[in-house]
Order: sequence, then structure tokens, then C-alpha cells
Amino acid sequence: MAQNIYDDPKFFAGYSQLPRQVHGLKGAPEWNAIKAMLPPLEGKRVADLGCGFGWASRWMRQQGAASVMGYDLSEKMIGRARADTDDEAIHYRIADLDRLELPVDSFDLVYSALAFHYVADFDRLVGMMHRALTLGGALVFTIEHPIFMAASQPDWIEDEQGRKIWPVNGYSIEGERRTNWFVDGVLKYHRTMGTTLNTLIRQGFQIDRIEEFAPTTAQISENPGLAEELERPMMLLVSAHTT
Amino acid sequence: MAQNIYDDPKFFAGYSQLPRQVHGLKGAPEWNAIKAMLPPLEGKRVADLGCGFGWASRWMRQQGAASVMGYDLSEKMIGRARADTDDEAIHYRIADLDRLELPVDSFDLVYSALAFHYVADFDRLVGMMHRALTLGGALVFTIEHPIFMAASQPDWIEDEQGRKIWPVNGYSIEGERRTNWFVDGVLKYHRTMGTTLNTLIRQGFQIDRIEEFAPTTAQISENPGLAEELERPMMLLVSAHTT
Repeated sequence: MAQNIYDDPKFFAGYSQLPRQVHGLKGAPEWNAIKAMLPPLEGKRVADLGCGFGWASRWMRQQGAASVMGYDLSEKMIGRARADTDDEAIHYRIADLDRLELPVDSFDLVYSALAFHYVADFDRLVGMMHRALTLGGALVFTIEHPIFMAASQPDWIEDEQGRKIWPVNGYSIEGERRTNWFVDGVLKYHRTMGTTLNTLIRQGFQIDRIEEFAPTTAQISENPGLAEELERPMMLLVSAHTT
Repeated sequence: MAQNIYDDPKFFAGYSQLPRQVHGLKGAPEWNAIKAMLPPLEGKRVADLGCGFGWASRWMRQQGAASVMGYDLSEKMIGRARADTDDEAIHYRIADLDRLELPVDSFDLVYSALAFHYVADFDRLVGMMHRALTLGGALVFTIEHPIFMAASQPDWIEDEQGRKIWPVNGYSIEGERRTNWFVDGVLKYHRTMGTTLNTLIRQGFQIDRIEEFAPTTAQISENPGLAEELERPMMLLVSAHTT
């Protein structure tokens, strides 16, 4: 079973104060890039894996999705998602993505934001999603970028000229990474870009687009702290469809 | 026109002593990975872009390719390729990949090893290759990995624990990179993984496989210096086909 950090009170308290949790999708700088990768939502049956507070689930219904099933490991997240949602076509369920089995041929879109890097068995998950999608169905997801995750000490350092450097090592050595994020020892799984994309292809997906999120000039003007995201990609965005 | 470092006598002297130039394909640790990505060669019409001394061109004919056209910017490379080849179905031409136009619908496989990162206009090149290939034709190429190329000072540094770190910065800022390699100011073009793959997809290729070359345990036993290649990928290998 996946580690459930989200129900740790200390983690939850910190996490709930992140801009993207306070302000929803508008607080996520990569949201416009994600939107551009989504298929038209009108009439679609959507699964939202790692739905958190349900921000994206509700947005997709507003865009005309026929139904949205949101899944999350955290009781606290699902509890708040249910409290914040008044829509009979959105359902939230507690589920571990390392074990979840969606019904076969039941969804037109599987969406997931920043959840799959907590999943140990990506191959199982991708096969399951392929079975759950109809033919031509779309998969759009974001994960922490492997450049961001690989290193043993993933934090900025300065070079001799005082320029920021992001360290990379152990890139080809996949598996567990432990970091401290609100609490100590948050468990994530590093996979190379090659493994992520080849797993999708092998399980029957065709890759449509890859984005390594970088802020726009306008975003940096508004929030100068985002400039460091040009130095190394923090997030990988992928869209694909079943064949 | 692309920078022609290869005909610089100092560069050529150093370059010619690289294991992969002295020993050919056996001297390239990624060669087995490339071979696994190639389609069956029997009867295929092949273009080898950046063919150098012609090692791969000759190997492909040995595997049954009907014909091989090798292209390289360097007169010295093409001169030696011609001198080393005795096969009427292999032709070598001097050509700049920034300008080369192959005849339409004339090749079943386009292959290129470590040449495309010298090309300024990748979009033009990919469109041209797509037109030159028959429907379902294969493109297999290797480039320096964007993790390897991105940084302003692309060289190992040591962290406080004495562990090797590869520096990344400026990843999302694409374009010229200058490095010193046998001579000063070798000009390369950094593109993100996203740009490389999205360009292929937009021009009508379907991605089949991505490899970020990492040595096997057996390779490291034989050549312990290769272990550092596990820390960060130096080469990106891509296979795709036209649709």
C-alpha cells in the first residue's frame, strides 16, 4: 500500500496552505499548460486519480463532463472534496493507486495531477488505466519531473559564479526517493523519462504531447520566484491516447 | 550553415582517437541499445545522416540493407569513409543537415548518431526526414541528452559528501551552447526533451521508444569508468515511424 502522508496532521496542515490548495487550479502555474493538453470534455466520463480536494473534478464537470469519479488515498482530502462539492455526477472514493482497479471500458478520460510519482508499480497502473479507457480514450497526467526527483540531495546549490544549479545524480537508478516535505521521509518513486514513456507505449498508449513545465514571461513578471523553474523542470506533463 | 569543426585539423586529430572512431561500433557503449531499436534491415533503403567514417553505413549493408546513402558535413570524414568502403550500394555525400533535402518517399530508414544536436533548425530537418521516408518508415537517432547539454558549465562537480553531481541549469532556455571539445567553442543546440519529441509528433511521427543510455552491469565491470553514466544520461536514443 502507498504511504499515506496526506492524513498526517502536520503534513495536512502544511499542504492545505499551498497556493494550489488555497486558490485551486488558479494557484497552479502549470494549469494553463494542462488545460491545453486536455481533450474536449463535453459528455466525457472522467476518472481523476489523486483528486485531492476535488478542484479539477469540479472544473471538468463545469466544462461539460458527463460524470467524474475522483479517487484519493487520503480520508481528509476525500472528506473535504465531498464537503466542497454539490453535484450528483461527481463521486469521490478513497483508493490506493497501487491497488485501484477501475471498471473496464468505462472512462473517456483519465486525469491525474502530481500523484503517479507516489505509485510503486507504474506498469500495473498504466495497464489498468488502458483497460479502463475506451478505444481512443485520453490519458493526461502530471508528475514530478525525473530531473527534479533523481538526486540524492534534491535542492539548489550555487556554482562558483553564484548561479543556481540543480543537482542530478543517480538518474538511471530508479526506485525509492525519500524527501522531507512538511514531514520527514516522504516516499516517492523515481523513474526515468524513458521508463515513463516506454511503459505507456508498451501498454498500448500513443504519446501525443510532452511538456516540461516552464513559466511564461508574464507569469514570471507576476511572480518573480517562478524564474527558477526555467533552470530545471519540476513537472512533467504527458498526454496520450489508447490505440 | 552548420559549424564544421570536423575539418579543423586539431579537432580531427583528437576526434579520430576516440574509441568509437578507432574501434567503430564496438567502441560505442550505446551501440547494443541502438541495435535493439532498429527495424529489420533486409532490403531497406537507408539514409545515414552524419555518417562520419561510415561504420554504421557499412554495418547496415552487412545486415542486408539494399542501399545506404551516408551524408556528412566533413570532407575529411567523407574522404575516409569512401577510402574504407568497397561497396557499390553505399554512397557518401558531403552535406549540411541544416540544408540537406533528401528526395521524397525514397527511404525506409533514416538513421543518425550524435549529429542532430549540431542542427539549428530541428523542425525543418524533421519535416524533411518525414517527407523522405515512405509511409511506416523508421527514424532512429541518438543525440546528446538535454540533461547533459543544458548547463552553462556542463561538467561534474562534487557535493559535500564527495558524490558526483551533474549540474543542470537553463534547461528551459533553448538554443546555442558552446563547449570546449578538442577545440574551443564547439557549437551545439540545446532543445528540451519536450521540444524534441513534440517536433517529431507534430511532423507526423509516432514515437516507438525512448532510451536514455545507461551502461549495463557487465559493461561497467569491463570498463569501470562507465559507472558515471548511471549518474546522468549523456545520450538520448529515439525510435519513431511515420504515420
